[in-house]
Amino acid sequence: MAKRFSTDTYVNGILSGDRVLLSRAITIVESKLPQDQDLAQEIIANVLPHSGNAVRIGITGVPGVGKSTFIEAFGNYIIKQAGKKLAVLAIDPTSQRTGGSILGDKTRMESLSVNPNAFIRPSPAGKSLGGVTKATRETIILCEAAGFDAIIVETVGVGQSETAVHAMVDFFLLLMLAGAGDELQGIKRGIMEMADAIAITKADGTNADKAKLARAEYQNALHLYPMSASGWLPKVSTCSALQQTGLDTIWQTIVEYLKLTQKNGYFEKKRREQNLLWMYEAIREGLEENFYAHQQVKAQLATIAEQVKHGQKSAFAAAHELLKLV
Amino acid sequence: MAKRFSTDTYVNGILSGDRVLLSRAITIVESKLPQDQDLAQEIIANVLPHSGNAVRIGITGVPGVGKSTFIEAFGNYIIKQAGKKLAVLAIDPTSQRTGGSILGDKTRMESLSVNPNAFIRPSPAGKSLGGVTKATRETIILCEAAGFDAIIVETVGVGQSETAVHAMVDFFLLLMLAGAGDELQGIKRGIMEMADAIAITKADGTNADKAKLARAEYQNALHLYPMSASGWLPKVSTCSALQQTGLDTIWQTIVEYLKLTQKNGYFEKKRREQNLLWMYEAIREGLEENFYAHQQVKAQLATIAEQVKHGQKSAFAAAHELLKLV
Repeated sequence: MAKRFSTDTYVNGILSGDRVLLSRAITIVESKLPQDQDLAQEIIANVLPHSGNAVRIGITGVPGVGKSTFIEAFGNYIIKQAGKKLAVLAIDPTSQRTGGSILGDKTRMESLSVNPNAFIRPSPAGKSLGGVTKATRETIILCEAAGFDAIIVETVGVGQSETAVHAMVDFFLLLMLAGAGDELQGIKRGIMEMADAIAITKADGTNADKAKLARAEYQNALHLYPMSASGWLPKVSTCSALQQTGLDTIWQTIVEYLKLTQKNGYFEKKRREQNLLWMYEAIREGLEENFYAHQQVKAQLATIAEQVKHGQKSAFAAAHELLKLV
Repeated sequence: MAKRFSTDTYVNGILSGDRVLLSRAITIVESKLPQDQDLAQEIIANVLPHSGNAVRIGITGVPGVGKSTFIEAFGNYIIKQAGKKLAVLAIDPTSQRTGGSILGDKTRMESLSVNPNAFIRPSPAGKSLGGVTKATRETIILCEAAGFDAIIVETVGVGQSETAVHAMVDFFLLLMLAGAGDELQGIKRGIMEMADAIAITKADGTNADKAKLARAEYQNALHLYPMSASGWLPKVSTCSALQQTGLDTIWQTIVEYLKLTQKNGYFEKKRREQNLLWMYEAIREGLEENFYAHQQVKAQLATIAEQVKHGQKSAFAAAHELLKLV
């Protein structure tokens, strides 16, 4: 195990904006060791009153949409034009690379990664989706306490991670490519309806007209959607990271969204609901973890599941049988 | 407590298509009494090998869309034209009427309710969503064992019940009204993307042209959606229960869907996944039920939840604290 400092050292370091101590604290949050988990909870409890002041932005899109390039351009825009300190976190439970993730390849965000007002942290490796989302949510708290007032949480739009990201951010941005519709097949159903905004990427060169057309199509489609509880009508725009166009529109959209939802109370309400949601989620995960780790359950689950799958035993009889074992 | 027969009496009654014993068995499935629950599981275990042979159709739509009228017309069509025996079940956890539900008012399906090939069962009263869905899922098994080879599960498109219905049927039909978009606001986000077909209702008289227009709009919007794992592209059509038009198209769509998914293996795969899903759901519900019923948890939950909501305690620290109590 790497060297550990006292809780105070981490807390003071984070509150003074020390990036090295912030990084190390995140490593502790990501650690599976019980003593690290205790230390992590102590650090979090201490910095918690200093968190919550950032705008939390979720960004998703299938591979090929140009997510890294977009985040680099948009991140630099946010820092330069909006005067923000930006942390970029990633949720990518599918990543198998050691210590790696969609953000692991630093060269993909070259200029952002050396910007003193940016802090980039790849997805924790070797964790389940539940583990990744827990770590990311706690990392948001640490980054906010360290003075980062804009947080981008990046994810790949192909799995279950979007729902988790959606539940930890204020604003959810979906990146899309213009095209014949085929490229959408990688996006999981349900994600479009979570979006507060859609940005059509790579709207440059010969692609510009297609992007404009796609924009109109999506805006029409979104009009058919049910109104969100926030009272916000999702916006669609085009952008080009290459030509640095459309980034201002997207940021303006986020600012407008914040203005509306902070005024009508939805922003605060959503944050509170998210906090509670994560508590109930953590309880559920804890209960299930203990249950499925139980010796008797482990011994019998596979056989019973097979019977249920093939209709030889009803789902509820099986559950009843397994619950009796613990 | 009402009189109970032996397990064999219910089982033999159900298998011979006795509607009175089927109804009584459903009442036992819906009962909260522990001895009834044991009896229910015995009945289900015995009839389970005779279930699974119906096409299970979920139907949803906001109040005002004409759901009852549609189901009456469509149900009569299925019985007469497709030669099916039809059971209509309802999931409506919001209903507060005693013994009642969206289907409680029998006069709303007058001709279907007296059809010897139809069996109508309202949503069980006084139950949580989890309780309602469990009862409905087990009722599907009983109805199939009693020889009903088409099952309609009806729900109101405004709550969480659609996800539950979607997870227990083969085909999910969304009813929509033509109009300016406002009427959609009652439909919960995410439901449109679950639909295997959308039917625009009340496409008659002065409404016919509007319905045709809406049909084209929704078909376009659905093209922008990600492809379903079934390989099926959702269809949009118009219908009129009043003029009995469009019902054949909807039934034909269901037949096509079954043909495609039974051929490509998705149908069987989905059924198996649904079985497993319900087992894991039942386990989760059982675990949570025990946890939240625990004296210590009950005593402290409200205070801790309030702290989490207002950011005074982190979600994970709170969960940890509560989990330690049991």
